[in-house]
Amino acid sequence: MSSTHNAVTAGRPSGRSAVAVPQLIADARAGSPRAVARLITLVEEASPLLREVMAALMPHTGHARIVGLTGSPGVGKSTSTSALVTELRKQGQRVAVLAVDPSSPFSGGALLGDRVRMSLHATDPDVYIRSMASRGHLGGLSWATPQALRVLDAAGFDTILLETVGVGQSEVEVAGLADTTLVLLAPGMGDGIQAAKAGILEIGDVYVVNKADRDGAAQVSRDLRGMLSHSERAADAWKRPILKTVAQEGTGVAEVVEAIDAHRAYLEATGELARRRTKRARVEVEEIALGELRRRWGAVSGSAELDMLAARVATAQLDPYAAADELLKDR
Amino acid sequence: MSSTHNAVTAGRPSGRSAVAVPQLIADARAGSPRAVARLITLVEEASPLLREVMAALMPHTGHARIVGLTGSPGVGKSTSTSALVTELRKQGQRVAVLAVDPSSPFSGGALLGDRVRMSLHATDPDVYIRSMASRGHLGGLSWATPQALRVLDAAGFDTILLETVGVGQSEVEVAGLADTTLVLLAPGMGDGIQAAKAGILEIGDVYVVNKADRDGAAQVSRDLRGMLSHSERAADAWKRPILKTVAQEGTGVAEVVEAIDAHRAYLEATGELARRRTKRARVEVEEIALGELRRRWGAVSGSAELDMLAARVATAQLDPYAAADELLKDR
Repeated sequence: MSSTHNAVTAGRPSGRSAVAVPQLIADARAGSPRAVARLITLVEEASPLLREVMAALMPHTGHARIVGLTGSPGVGKSTSTSALVTELRKQGQRVAVLAVDPSSPFSGGALLGDRVRMSLHATDPDVYIRSMASRGHLGGLSWATPQALRVLDAAGFDTILLETVGVGQSEVEVAGLADTTLVLLAPGMGDGIQAAKAGILEIGDVYVVNKADRDGAAQVSRDLRGMLSHSERAADAWKRPILKTVAQEGTGVAEVVEAIDAHRAYLEATGELARRRTKRARVEVEEIALGELRRRWGAVSGSAELDMLAARVATAQLDPYAAADELLKDR
Repeated sequence: MSSTHNAVTAGRPSGRSAVAVPQLIADARAGSPRAVARLITLVEEASPLLREVMAALMPHTGHARIVGLTGSPGVGKSTSTSALVTELRKQGQRVAVLAVDPSSPFSGGALLGDRVRMSLHATDPDVYIRSMASRGHLGGLSWATPQALRVLDAAGFDTILLETVGVGQSEVEVAGLADTTLVLLAPGMGDGIQAAKAGILEIGDVYVVNKADRDGAAQVSRDLRGMLSHSERAADAWKRPILKTVAQEGTGVAEVVEAIDAHRAYLEATGELARRRTKRARVEVEEIALGELRRRWGAVSGSAELDMLAARVATAQLDPYAAADELLKDR
């Protein structure tokens, strides 16, 4: 690889100086938000440097706890994320927020949310907030979320809040990549049924009924309790708590952090943490390998060799299966 | 391969005796319609025997001329096919009709057409009519049409009429696999515009305005002539004729056969025949290779090896790209 390929401008306008990958990683680990941003931009842009970046990050990973947040629009997801950041900061933790919209190629909505939250945490050097553009829900960027999480883990954050934007199956899948997944609901939105539809109930470890000071909060809790009882797990398994918050005022947020800690202890005690992290790595490795196969196929499909083999099949010198074998040989 | 795999029951109900592939091919070449039917059923069912069957058929291929017929519903496609069969039989040719609906997993419509046509040619041992079920338009069976054509070619038919059922891009693609492609139109259907939309104009070698005794037939010819002039090819290229028929009465059908013969002479004189047959083989080989890659991917994606590699990535012993390399090694 040439030195040009080893230098990073991270897709910024020209004029920004290039930085070598090892220096960028050292800077990110030393607390530079700009270096972290550049590394995540490399992920977002599917940079050819990612192979080198990921290999270099590996030795520095495994510390962060990753907490997923999901829920329908209007449940107060951004406000809850902000309140959780405040609570975790009280404990002295370094906190990163990664907002991913797996159903949209644009990060506009997430960026709007960023601005609101930035106003609360913008001056705190131990809080890093980033939205990541995703490129459609057809699987092309399934490796991107695990890689962005790896960047933040290696950069030394204690907790990473993985917030999914939008609704649907792909959102649920992204949130499911976390160590602990919070499902947020709120009264007056028919959330119980919506949540069940989206498969959210399957992935939650901790359930939070936000806007708990409003009419109907108790009903949402009861409905949810009823639904969870239908899918209750084994006797020794984690009992999924249903908590109430008023995120706007910070009410109940400390209890949510306690529940996250309790779930973490459960994960470690049972070996479930390793299982979840393996699942996350599985998604990433599988997607990288699939991308490589797609690349190989492109080379096969457009090749002069295919033309030559097809001509031999057309003139009955070769049968089509033998031609296909030949085409795939050494690939 | 076990002897069970080398025996053919062609998906028929039990009780039918199994036949070895070489015998089946010998029977098909000796004129057995039942043997031809069984071989095409193997294609239709994507039988694992196809590799052996196609290799054995290769030496017997290259004789048949393949004529595609396409056109919107209502132009009289089945009637025209039947009239062409009658005309070709007058010349003493053995004729096969293969009706393919690439847009539907069911062959119901095609089978209905079969019954109508069978009533005219059912007692003629030198006419073979068959509809082939296709399984969706997402590319899974693109190799099937070339393979069914190979069965009929090897069975010794002089002309194979490849009739596509339904409308749309996939129909156009299938018709385009022929040596000579007939595009059928009729007055009073807005066919000119529809044909242009479906890309039919691009693939036609001979244009036939059927139901030429009806009002508007001359207008359809003029509109078509105007459209073709916009996409006229080089001076030495084939001049695409526009013919008129009343297929129901057999009027003009002899002229269509003459145009097919003239186009055949053009194909042979210019080397275009070899190019078209190579294109057909290219589609087939490419689809077989893609199917093999999909099979390999299934084995990768579901493997215990992936789980093991993911566990090493999750514990930072291996980076995800190295894991993907390992996964794809020797595949």
